[in-house]
Amino acid sequence: MRSTLLKTFPRIYLAMGYNKTAALRLSLTNQHISPVRLNSTSANSAATIANIGNINQGTKYTTDFKNYAIDKNTGSVISYFHDIPLDLNVEKREANMIVEIPRWSNAKFEISTSLPGNPIVQDVKKGEVRFVKNLFPYHGYIHNYGAFPQTWEDPTTKNESINLYGDNDPLDVCEIGSNIISTGTVKRVKILGSIALIDDGELDWKVIVVDIEDPLAKEVFDIHHLFLKTPGLLESTRSWFRDYKLADGKPQNEFAFNGKYKNSQETIEIIQECNQSWKRLINGQVKGDKLPTTENVRCKGTPNFKSSFEDISLKSSSTESVVPSIVQKIYYIPTE
Amino acid sequence: MRSTLLKTFPRIYLAMGYNKTAALRLSLTNQHISPVRLNSTSANSAATIANIGNINQGTKYTTDFKNYAIDKNTGSVISYFHDIPLDLNVEKREANMIVEIPRWSNAKFEISTSLPGNPIVQDVKKGEVRFVKNLFPYHGYIHNYGAFPQTWEDPTTKNESINLYGDNDPLDVCEIGSNIISTGTVKRVKILGSIALIDDGELDWKVIVVDIEDPLAKEVFDIHHLFLKTPGLLESTRSWFRDYKLADGKPQNEFAFNGKYKNSQETIEIIQECNQSWKRLINGQVKGDKLPTTENVRCKGTPNFKSSFEDISLKSSSTESVVPSIVQKIYYIPTE
Repeated sequence: MRSTLLKTFPRIYLAMGYNKTAALRLSLTNQHISPVRLNSTSANSAATIANIGNINQGTKYTTDFKNYAIDKNTGSVISYFHDIPLDLNVEKREANMIVEIPRWSNAKFEISTSLPGNPIVQDVKKGEVRFVKNLFPYHGYIHNYGAFPQTWEDPTTKNESINLYGDNDPLDVCEIGSNIISTGTVKRVKILGSIALIDDGELDWKVIVVDIEDPLAKEVFDIHHLFLKTPGLLESTRSWFRDYKLADGKPQNEFAFNGKYKNSQETIEIIQECNQSWKRLINGQVKGDKLPTTENVRCKGTPNFKSSFEDISLKSSSTESVVPSIVQKIYYIPTE
Repeated sequence: MRSTLLKTFPRIYLAMGYNKTAALRLSLTNQHISPVRLNSTSANSAATIANIGNINQGTKYTTDFKNYAIDKNTGSVISYFHDIPLDLNVEKREANMIVEIPRWSNAKFEISTSLPGNPIVQDVKKGEVRFVKNLFPYHGYIHNYGAFPQTWEDPTTKNESINLYGDNDPLDVCEIGSNIISTGTVKRVKILGSIALIDDGELDWKVIVVDIEDPLAKEVFDIHHLFLKTPGLLESTRSWFRDYKLADGKPQNEFAFNGKYKNSQETIEIIQECNQSWKRLINGQVKGDKLPTTENVRCKGTPNFKSSFEDISLKSSSTESVVPSIVQKIYYIPTE
């Protein structure tokens, strides 16, 4: 990112302090890359979030389950991927996050990049809905896990510094606050740092954030604060992502940068890059196979903007279901 | 235990191999200490367990909740503490365990030593039902936690080697198998080792066991096998018990023997000691304040044996309840 910026705006970048210019750089970069101006909601992020709800369809823990984001005012579906604003505030280091998987649960819920409306669905492997296994001493996910809207890890272009392709998904986020946050919740979060997982040979950043409403958010401002304020968190997060597929008979995952965490500033650059990738995607500037659907109802001027997801008919009731008991098993696997 | 035995049966003890004489020693010690012969169920432990059920009364997570053990054949209450046989098999290193707290839950359920029938109740502190807090990365208890029936950590006599009084409760047990086991379940378990916690200045052994029906039980026969077969378990168990009260503002707990685990053989001696203490208790040979109730319906010949707990009238329905959401919070506390 820095090198790109140096090429594009070398004098501005060099003449001004790095922190102070971030907002300007983002603005300039946006203008440079995006042929259309996208709706901006920066002015009132809290109000925007408050107007987003979600609704379950189908039976949980089955392949037909879907959780759609909806506009509370109209009751109509909006896309988690495209229509919820990232609303990155570089000065405050804040953005909006979508929670897919509540802490201590196992069902691998994720935003579908292929279905119209981009609902949250449970990942399916070999025809079966997927649950992560409990590797002692962990119970399910140890964070509220989710993604940044309007970001995309581009699978068509190699990352400059890591020499890997992106995983074709929105950027993954780990929220570390003290509360459990339910699937489909949109949260304003503070950006603290990130770690670069290599998952099945693809680049898969995990961004560490905290809900701005959590008391912890007033005490931590960058990744190194976590060593003192959340003892064990960075080490457990690294070992969790390294080992979480071991009980499925897969090897350990590896990390780029020797597993070193990136700080807040570096992470904001990564988020900006992924937001730029998404903008190229939504504007039809990326060519390739198996690209995500870009249908949306709030990114006016983009090729696949439409007035509504009229084909999606929501039903008022969904069926609750219980996690299969086998999901509760714990596994002991040598990891070192 | 050894020194007591040497005084009582010096020639037998010295003349025979230690392992081989364990069953004989137990038998001799029983005759020496117990004025009455207690019911033995060793012959068919599985059948005995299969005939024990349990029933919830009152609303879970309130002070009026009680879970009683019942005789499935008659539907009548039996005491978890006194009427379920320990049935210690020294050769096989097996005994019966009662599960109080399922893994990954927080409510501090325990066998009441004071209420008639010794139901499992939720511990109460300052008028409030007690939940253990989640200290990152742990979710609730990391084992299926419970107790051995017919054992008692004697608070009236100092332990010879540790110079501490017992905590006036049945001996605590941590079951490490892969399944979650529900409150009130009686399980046949294999005894692997133990660690001597000092909790509020009282001796409080934690015995490590595995359900004999768990596949792990075929692979581990003593505490040192766990280093290989359940990586992280012994370290996490030690740190969990050391730190679990930190989020309540209390100091770390300490351990006797520098936190070193006792092996299976040493642990069986501890269980035998606590079983002897219980026999003195049930036979009315212990004097002191705040001793547990010794009312029972299966230890014939003991002072407080009775035909039934006729004052306990069971209701057919109990009210389910949800854990308060605050219990789901996670805490980050510096521990080193």
